[in-house]
Amino acid sequence: MKVHGRNVLKEILATNTPVKMIYFSESGDSELKQLIEKVKNKKLPFTVANKKILTKLCNYDKHQGVVIDIGDFKYKDEHVIEKFDNPFLVILDQLQDPHNFGAIIRTAVGAGANAIIIPKDNSVKVTPTVIKVSAGTIFKIDIIQVVNISRSIEKIKKLGIWVYGADMNGTKYYKADLKKPIAIVLGNEGSGIRKLVKEKCDGFISIPMKNSIDSLNVSVSAGIILFEVMRQNESIDS
Amino acid sequence: MKVHGRNVLKEILATNTPVKMIYFSESGDSELKQLIEKVKNKKLPFTVANKKILTKLCNYDKHQGVVIDIGDFKYKDEHVIEKFDNPFLVILDQLQDPHNFGAIIRTAVGAGANAIIIPKDNSVKVTPTVIKVSAGTIFKIDIIQVVNISRSIEKIKKLGIWVYGADMNGTKYYKADLKKPIAIVLGNEGSGIRKLVKEKCDGFISIPMKNSIDSLNVSVSAGIILFEVMRQNESIDS
Repeated sequence: MKVHGRNVLKEILATNTPVKMIYFSESGDSELKQLIEKVKNKKLPFTVANKKILTKLCNYDKHQGVVIDIGDFKYKDEHVIEKFDNPFLVILDQLQDPHNFGAIIRTAVGAGANAIIIPKDNSVKVTPTVIKVSAGTIFKIDIIQVVNISRSIEKIKKLGIWVYGADMNGTKYYKADLKKPIAIVLGNEGSGIRKLVKEKCDGFISIPMKNSIDSLNVSVSAGIILFEVMRQNESIDS
Repeated sequence: MKVHGRNVLKEILATNTPVKMIYFSESGDSELKQLIEKVKNKKLPFTVANKKILTKLCNYDKHQGVVIDIGDFKYKDEHVIEKFDNPFLVILDQLQDPHNFGAIIRTAVGAGANAIIIPKDNSVKVTPTVIKVSAGTIFKIDIIQVVNISRSIEKIKKLGIWVYGADMNGTKYYKADLKKPIAIVLGNEGSGIRKLVKEKCDGFISIPMKNSIDSLNVSVSAGIILFEVMRQNESIDS
């Protein structure tokens, strides 16, 4: 998979994410030259090519002079959850929009979540757009792909993790106990969390709203809820 | 201006927003027929046409069988602020992305804000995309266009409204007093709030973050901050 952009490369370098090849454009500015120096020092494979070749490689002209071939994106296996100390998980039940997924990844990393769990079928996957919208923060979190979300929730609950679904009929999010270990389930953009997945949740939380608005963009809802989890756990973490 | 979509039409009907013409596609489903009935009952001008004509009118094929000509979008004058009882304002300093603007409008309406203030120059404007992304909620809030944001903030402060800028060096957002009357300033996607605008703010608030993340998508930040304003004012409002 070929991803692009300077922030993406910076996060790849900061997290020592493996790369197959890094393509830089010729005649770059001083920031680009610094990035090439860093890549040299880390002994990573790179090449310098014409801008247009980079555009061809990533099918996009706003690549900022950087295209990175990261090979296949590596999803994690759900067994990694067992290794987390006091886990904070995000479960996305059939999310569809890559911009929402990218924004939720960035938000989850900022709020200190350990992993994001998505189903293999009927779900957005990790694509170059998702990585770009995440501003490269995807390399700081585990993305777990599972066959069956309901069955995964069952396993997660056995690990002593409390599972909350975001649903308009739930408790006000700031009146719920969101202490870790915790998992937050967010549903599809149009239809929310599926019935069978809901049945597995331990409880539900909602965001109260004015002006007869019944929902927010899912990445905004994710921000409000995940940062409330961080806030409630702040005194424990710091 | 021609906008499209069923939720947009529903909000136009719910808010009695003036329309020039409503175009419905032929052979619609039962929801579309109900919408036509509502439009008839309200004695609004409408016509039924071929799907392809609707696509041509709004330059978009996913119009859900509804295109609405609302004429020129009506920005409000900043004097409306004087009429608000205990105002809650959102100021966007040179925001650029229509998707961010649309999502922030929806969030601001959900959090109970009275108005969004944007500058005339170097700023995203209200476009069909903004209206669509706002899910039609734009008709439930005043959008005020001003020539000079700094001068507007001066006027707002004279009305006794406390003005907070969102900035990474500010007080943690949940440790600040966000009681109304209040205005929240959010900056440009890349560069934040301009220096001259910052100088006018009464104080700054920040969202603390983990994993060396220094910022979130601006519409996610808006969600976290605006819903904190709503939360802190809840006991007063209800």
